[in-house]
Amino acid sequence: MIGMFKQATNKRVAVFFASGLEECEALILVDLIYRAGIPCDKVSITGEREVTGSHEITITCDCTIDDAGFDFEAYDMLVLPGGLPGTPNLAACEPLTRALKTFAAAGKEIAAICAAPSVFAELGLLEDRYATSNPGFQEVLAKYGAHVLQDSVVVDGNITTSQGLGTAIDLGLALVGKILGPEDVEDLKGKIVYQGA
Amino acid sequence: MIGMFKQATNKRVAVFFASGLEECEALILVDLIYRAGIPCDKVSITGEREVTGSHEITITCDCTIDDAGFDFEAYDMLVLPGGLPGTPNLAACEPLTRALKTFAAAGKEIAAICAAPSVFAELGLLEDRYATSNPGFQEVLAKYGAHVLQDSVVVDGNITTSQGLGTAIDLGLALVGKILGPEDVEDLKGKIVYQGA
Repeated sequence: MIGMFKQATNKRVAVFFASGLEECEALILVDLIYRAGIPCDKVSITGEREVTGSHEITITCDCTIDDAGFDFEAYDMLVLPGGLPGTPNLAACEPLTRALKTFAAAGKEIAAICAAPSVFAELGLLEDRYATSNPGFQEVLAKYGAHVLQDSVVVDGNITTSQGLGTAIDLGLALVGKILGPEDVEDLKGKIVYQGA
Repeated sequence: MIGMFKQATNKRVAVFFASGLEECEALILVDLIYRAGIPCDKVSITGEREVTGSHEITITCDCTIDDAGFDFEAYDMLVLPGGLPGTPNLAACEPLTRALKTFAAAGKEIAAICAAPSVFAELGLLEDRYATSNPGFQEVLAKYGAHVLQDSVVVDGNITTSQGLGTAIDLGLALVGKILGPEDVEDLKGKIVYQGA
């Protein structure tokens, strides 16, 4: 099955899996990025490669942040899915939050969906930036100085945010568009029979 | 995390996992059905509970059809995700195809997405029925006597079909609507921030 992957770029994406994550928010992003030919790792922050989400779905990740040799700097984009308690679990992961701050300061790409943009907000990364999130977390974004928009996906420079499972395909397409380009996005939309966005 | 599930019905759904399935087509359905409070099992047809899909995502299923005591008759709806070679793997699983024929003949609910409606077609279940599938498989449906429509989801009595990953949320909402009702679908759309369908 590995033969299905046709690498289209040397850029590399990490999607972070915490216990209690929204499984499909994470996997839709992984799936679309993989289909587009962008190397993408499912990275567990739990210390175990098996991670169980908030709907009792267990996924086997490619690696964990505790693996010898794991290096955030090997990636060009860091992505946070939402979910409860997945999101507070991500926020409590110090190696991850340190890397997010480093990426944001360097203008490198970070993205989050659903509850997870609140992690960016609490780190001070959304101050005076345009962003969105699940409606239930937008007041957290506003409290930390974000300009909250109601679009399904908001791109402000190197920071991309989105609202929830129902907007996960739109976010996946936006991330593919950032790394590759609009033609690849149109191609992907055809392949998955998607009418939205 | 089990506490998150609030059971809304005694009806029970089985989603079948074959090697090389479209992981997110399966999991979006599982996720939406779970959120709606409908008991749903991820059922492996591989003999192992760990199943790897066509995008190298490995999922742990709840059971396998080889488990002692596994009984198709315990379910009210059988659901097939697509994918290659997931779909031919489903088609080659005799206990499953036998159950699909029994369900169809009894007017019990069956559903499929992407390439998988071709399994129904080849079993003769779509003769003179309205249906859809991934565009690449619609000629198989037509060959076996289906009236092929281009809607994202087609409901013809007890048989529901859909086109691909980009229509999986629409299919999940339709299946929830069949088991529960339109109010539950609207509630779910709000929770996942979904503008489509």
